[in-house]
Amino acid sequence: MEFIAIGDELLSGRITDANGPKLAEVGQRLGYPLTHLQIIGDEMSEIKKTLKEAATRSELIICSGGLGPTPDDRTKHALAELLEVPLEDSPKAREIVKVHYQRIHKNWGPEINSYHLIPQGVDPLENPNGLAPGLLAKLNKAQIVFLPGPPREFHAMLGYHLERITQTLQKKPQRLSQFCVRTYGVPEEKIFGELCPTLWEELEKYGKLSSLPNFFGVDLVLQASKTMSEIEQENWAEQIKQHLFQTAVAPNIWQFGEQDLASYLLDQMRSRSLTLGLAESCTGGLASSFITDVPGCSDIFYGSIVSYHNNTKINILNVDPHTIQEYGAVSENCVRQMADGARKVLGVDAVISYSGIAGPTGGSEAKPVGTLAIALSTSWAPTQSQICQTNGDRKMLKSRFAVKGLHWLLTQLPK
Amino acid sequence: MEFIAIGDELLSGRITDANGPKLAEVGQRLGYPLTHLQIIGDEMSEIKKTLKEAATRSELIICSGGLGPTPDDRTKHALAELLEVPLEDSPKAREIVKVHYQRIHKNWGPEINSYHLIPQGVDPLENPNGLAPGLLAKLNKAQIVFLPGPPREFHAMLGYHLERITQTLQKKPQRLSQFCVRTYGVPEEKIFGELCPTLWEELEKYGKLSSLPNFFGVDLVLQASKTMSEIEQENWAEQIKQHLFQTAVAPNIWQFGEQDLASYLLDQMRSRSLTLGLAESCTGGLASSFITDVPGCSDIFYGSIVSYHNNTKINILNVDPHTIQEYGAVSENCVRQMADGARKVLGVDAVISYSGIAGPTGGSEAKPVGTLAIALSTSWAPTQSQICQTNGDRKMLKSRFAVKGLHWLLTQLPK
Repeated sequence: MEFIAIGDELLSGRITDANGPKLAEVGQRLGYPLTHLQIIGDEMSEIKKTLKEAATRSELIICSGGLGPTPDDRTKHALAELLEVPLEDSPKAREIVKVHYQRIHKNWGPEINSYHLIPQGVDPLENPNGLAPGLLAKLNKAQIVFLPGPPREFHAMLGYHLERITQTLQKKPQRLSQFCVRTYGVPEEKIFGELCPTLWEELEKYGKLSSLPNFFGVDLVLQASKTMSEIEQENWAEQIKQHLFQTAVAPNIWQFGEQDLASYLLDQMRSRSLTLGLAESCTGGLASSFITDVPGCSDIFYGSIVSYHNNTKINILNVDPHTIQEYGAVSENCVRQMADGARKVLGVDAVISYSGIAGPTGGSEAKPVGTLAIALSTSWAPTQSQICQTNGDRKMLKSRFAVKGLHWLLTQLPK
Repeated sequence: MEFIAIGDELLSGRITDANGPKLAEVGQRLGYPLTHLQIIGDEMSEIKKTLKEAATRSELIICSGGLGPTPDDRTKHALAELLEVPLEDSPKAREIVKVHYQRIHKNWGPEINSYHLIPQGVDPLENPNGLAPGLLAKLNKAQIVFLPGPPREFHAMLGYHLERITQTLQKKPQRLSQFCVRTYGVPEEKIFGELCPTLWEELEKYGKLSSLPNFFGVDLVLQASKTMSEIEQENWAEQIKQHLFQTAVAPNIWQFGEQDLASYLLDQMRSRSLTLGLAESCTGGLASSFITDVPGCSDIFYGSIVSYHNNTKINILNVDPHTIQEYGAVSENCVRQMADGARKVLGVDAVISYSGIAGPTGGSEAKPVGTLAIALSTSWAPTQSQICQTNGDRKMLKSRFAVKGLHWLLTQLPK
């Protein structure tokens, strides 16, 4: 399966395509992994050329963008030219569009827009989350699906149409087992160098290995070389696990699986009946937002005090003003008081507190941008703190800081 | 300029490419806009074919990924095959790599990795934020720049090398003026339909128009059709402004410019010497994170109480437990108390409070997923509240909710 996103705005840095990543995920799940992703501008000749080329190598092509009501939306015109057919008034498209408008309690008529005009011989597709219909066309042996650019509509239409369309393909779905091992705190070079110089060859015996550095650390992903039954797959994964337990990277592994860190941490806390709170300065609410991205977090997570201003640290978290004066807000003393104060005021079992310098200004020689002071206050152990350093721009530092704290708490949970 | 991201992980939905969007932005600024963006897998033949094709149409090609130390990093092998040269031991690469390792207080030698082996005739490039060097190759008339995949390294290398490389291109930079108008609360179809049916044609007189729906509303972007002097550009922008003031979309315009909402709001508050705080339930820290993404926000923003649990609303924000019992946490009564309570405890001029249902569970017939209760408590006007509805998945709802509140406060600032 291929993906083509159409839109000048995606190339100008003004808007980031969110549809490709979503489609990649859905394609993997359906057994039709993405083989090629392209972003091109709104120019008709470029759209035609790109579609034509893609149709020579792929049986299924998903496109997004250019279906809207304004004159810069050119996709269906390009498609009509490519197929050498006119745009025609489609009764089926009219029906679909009318229903879309009824949903928002409005009447549609051709004076509103030209959603009813579609290339001859092409099928209109329902759009459960928007007004413009999608299109399904055939070019040589390829099926081409045109979906609207807004992610909310694109995502909903994938769910609504894609599985059905893949069932009509000649190529059968390819669902190879994957096994993901997540590590933290050690770069890939060190894993496969200093720590385990022969690990790559050893793991490749189990399938195709990829080493993927990301915010959460380094993921090692193994893809089986053949289709397996459920039991074979379990055995396969168990063998990889056992193998890794014997290696020097074992202490850095925090998960066998694909959950993100926040969701995994919440599950671990839930199974121990522990509640969580946060006290955030430099992360500015991002750690809390990571946690609240997880559906159903509210039984574990009571809240966060984003104490950006020192007065907030003092008034709500009961940080001693002298501590800030003497050691600064970015200090172990300060974050310990923040964590203890937040644990009390939130009434939770564990609090992670953060205070650091996310930049671009505010750094000094002693505490450069990238400095993080972090503390854990818990019901089961004395309060701990540490100072660490990392680098990146402001947004990246906020993320890295947030992840650092969540991971630290994960490693300190009672057995 | 073209971009090619190389890596199976980018097609599997496991990792989202962050380098393309960054490059798009930088290219626009340098006057070499991106014309084509592709993501392909690690397969050698695919890498070679894609590079060869790109070199027929573009003078500058930027690639990312596949330069790391593990055997799934195949980019330089593909490049050597494409150029029909061997990998050779490069003294210049050795020098560069040694310096990279000195930065992390380590010695590099060829037993560590093969960073010193690069295709014959290709230039190694310094990497200020990482260990693997980049590469600069020539294929026919195209320059191809290979940069590492990790965004931190990719971004730093763009800043370090790209401007210099573009200066060697035959094609001169193309810096056309752009003018951006940001609207909120009205879909593009309504802007160019019901509200201003002739607006598209009117605005196209000023240049190329794009209509770009996004989280913050709809952006109308005009690109001038010719290069202009600074004064011409100012006049041009002023004419567009004056034109828009006469139209029915005027009340929905919140900015002439490109600032994001949080940064714009903070500037508007700074110029009025007003301070800001938040009380967040359903947005879970995201509104606060939007605000703290803005460098230098700390003079305006005092903090946020992420009161996810009802006890947190009651204990810290002084919400009356009977209010929650009688009306529910997602109610105007509750958010008004949250906003007033937070304004008091944070000691700020204005607080936005949020309580809503981000889903996927927790909705009811009376308050479905997507329901948001929101209040503004300020030093200059009585506390206001409203209930509104929107849709999307959990993460999208958190964003839309957060934006809704920030925009509302913007419209309610004292003149």
